[in-house]
Amino acid sequence: MTNKKSKKAVVYVRLKDGVLDPQGTTIQKALVQMGYKDFLAVRSGRFFELEIDAGSSDIDRKINEVCSKLLANPVIEKFEVEKKQ
Amino acid sequence: MTNKKSKKAVVYVRLKDGVLDPQGTTIQKALVQMGYKDFLAVRSGRFFELEIDAGSSDIDRKINEVCSKLLANPVIEKFEVEKKQ
Repeated sequence: MTNKKSKKAVVYVRLKDGVLDPQGTTIQKALVQMGYKDFLAVRSGRFFELEIDAGSSDIDRKINEVCSKLLANPVIEKFEVEKKQ
Repeated sequence: MTNKKSKKAVVYVRLKDGVLDPQGTTIQKALVQMGYKDFLAVRSGRFFELEIDAGSSDIDRKINEVCSKLLANPVIEKFEVEKKQ
């Protein structure tokens, strides 16, 4: 995306256990109606691929801040960070 | 989610390379405005955790069908399947 030297991280955001997932439920019902009865449950989630300046410091803290402030809603969602390279 | 014996698969849906990602762009701009200038680019995606009847047959084909018919839009999106257990 950019020419600066960069590293990557992926943030996975999913609903906390116990929080209803209407999107997932709707998809599962649609699948059954389409004849795919093998799918017993569906949970949906989002992910974000972040390209980060390779020269940045304290990046773990920054990613965590960014997750709770913008990418996820900590009241109902949890997130997981996977760093690449 | 259910008592039936089941296995899991996760489907990751992302935009094809070259397809504009307004959500990702907006997030990246918001991050810079919030002072996080280390984030050079953001691409967004969705994932679906599927719980599948352990007794089902031909499940790879079914997952692929379901992805192109319902979970992803093959015109602009690509998907990746990760089977668990």
